[in-house]
Amino acid sequence: MKIGIIGSGAIGLYYGSKLQQSGEDVHFLMRRDYQAVKANGLKVFSTQGDFVLPEVAAYREATEIGPVDLVIVALKTFSNQHMIELVSPLIGPDTAIMTLQNGLGNEDLLAQGFGADRVLGGIAFICSNRGEPGTVHHLGEGKITLGEMSQGLTPRSQQIAEMFSRAGVRCEAVDDLLRIRWEKLLWNIPFNGLTALFRQDVTELLAKPSIKELTYQLMLEVAAAANVQPLKKKIGSETYCSKLIAATEKMTGYRPSMMIDRLEGRPLELDAIYRIPLEQARKAGVEMPKVEMLWQLLSAGEDETQTP
Amino acid sequence: MKIGIIGSGAIGLYYGSKLQQSGEDVHFLMRRDYQAVKANGLKVFSTQGDFVLPEVAAYREATEIGPVDLVIVALKTFSNQHMIELVSPLIGPDTAIMTLQNGLGNEDLLAQGFGADRVLGGIAFICSNRGEPGTVHHLGEGKITLGEMSQGLTPRSQQIAEMFSRAGVRCEAVDDLLRIRWEKLLWNIPFNGLTALFRQDVTELLAKPSIKELTYQLMLEVAAAANVQPLKKKIGSETYCSKLIAATEKMTGYRPSMMIDRLEGRPLELDAIYRIPLEQARKAGVEMPKVEMLWQLLSAGEDETQTP
Repeated sequence: MKIGIIGSGAIGLYYGSKLQQSGEDVHFLMRRDYQAVKANGLKVFSTQGDFVLPEVAAYREATEIGPVDLVIVALKTFSNQHMIELVSPLIGPDTAIMTLQNGLGNEDLLAQGFGADRVLGGIAFICSNRGEPGTVHHLGEGKITLGEMSQGLTPRSQQIAEMFSRAGVRCEAVDDLLRIRWEKLLWNIPFNGLTALFRQDVTELLAKPSIKELTYQLMLEVAAAANVQPLKKKIGSETYCSKLIAATEKMTGYRPSMMIDRLEGRPLELDAIYRIPLEQARKAGVEMPKVEMLWQLLSAGEDETQTP
Repeated sequence: MKIGIIGSGAIGLYYGSKLQQSGEDVHFLMRRDYQAVKANGLKVFSTQGDFVLPEVAAYREATEIGPVDLVIVALKTFSNQHMIELVSPLIGPDTAIMTLQNGLGNEDLLAQGFGADRVLGGIAFICSNRGEPGTVHHLGEGKITLGEMSQGLTPRSQQIAEMFSRAGVRCEAVDDLLRIRWEKLLWNIPFNGLTALFRQDVTELLAKPSIKELTYQLMLEVAAAANVQPLKKKIGSETYCSKLIAATEKMTGYRPSMMIDRLEGRPLELDAIYRIPLEQARKAGVEMPKVEMLWQLLSAGEDETQTP
């Protein structure tokens, strides 16, 4: 399958390299790592085994890639204003587009640009980051759950899931993308925001009783908002939230992406993880006051970060 | 009038010195400043004119003061566990007790110890702080609004107000102490907490649109909780809140006491300004979710402060 990767950060580089290693025809739109990869290939340091791709189809401009079978979008959402322009040159008559980005609103943007029928979304449960130019570090996990934007399970979504599985990436196609998006928000909304606000990792934060209680309350707000969306099955019971917190307590020293973005002076993915979920909740008649406050507090810190 | 000052911090020292200067018989329970004041007197630097009290009746132990006509309590509320013990030796058959402390719960503690009939509360609108030992700085404002805990206007409350007025302190006795306490919380809850959390002054914070909006929302939560309490007249309309924020924007560079407490590593007055108001609101059937979240976020930082 000819695949275009738009957004060669930690997520795009890792999954793209796995797909190429298993024999897919992968083309990367690359900025920061272009020169290093052209000179020395792409080095992948992974808990599942390190490997090098000596030859990588890397491009500076999306127009050089041309039409593909599948576009994988892995841009940071704060760069979404460039998404349509970057994806357009890769679209042929039968091209599918899958976004692996965080939060809500990414599929909608793609649907506006290219039609909802082409669009899939995937949620990556992965811990990875970039290292020196030309390297990517996979520190743990890696499963992708994916689904069609406007339909249930399709041959296409199952075929993409099988392709990832062949590449050694645990992957499951599901029939309710909206549900898995909100389920991921149950974790992202409290933990991304609170770790970025306090600049402390999940273990440090959950050791504070008042923050542990707040985390639980934030999750319940998100669950209440999720369950007025058209999900096929409800999410986030009180027991489920307690278990999610207990599981996170065991992720010793884990720093979510938003904390790292703030520590490194980048903008935060506030629209995808806060603004749009708050809008969707309000449209359905549900307020999330503490989630809104977390968004307000995080927004206040954005003055001091660099623009991309 | 024989007056005992329990808690000779910025508030206790300033008002005590004004009362002594106008001829009242003032006795200060003093810790940090005791030696300096005994050696060199108490120096008051004030926007209304500096002055020195060469002779001050200062004591290390409350028992040395003996019964007085009026006890003025100006302890930081995080020392309230010592309040009854410190006030007891000053109580005679007709002693009145007035707390100038922040927030809710202080009158209740005094009433439990000494009976509600003795108890008055006052709200000090003042900007003052301590300097070198033996000095106090009055930077602006200074008005006191006071009232009886369990009655309306009384000859006693009016007499105390007149005494302050004679001492050059603007003072008004009112018939609804609970109302003025909640009205002060309308300001203290957002501004004390947010400046302590961000370690930024009111001007810096209100320059951020998301924090200005949050401040307004916090005020409306407090107003809603106040207005289910047995107040004689409602507080905090939307117009009033907007005006309060506009007035605060003009307090250029102002650092509320809680921000200073956090900057200097002291505990915060979280019980009086957050925990007890939240309890009183909940008892009356009103939730203040964003106020609760501010309390939770501030509590998380208390690990790192010194205990008193």
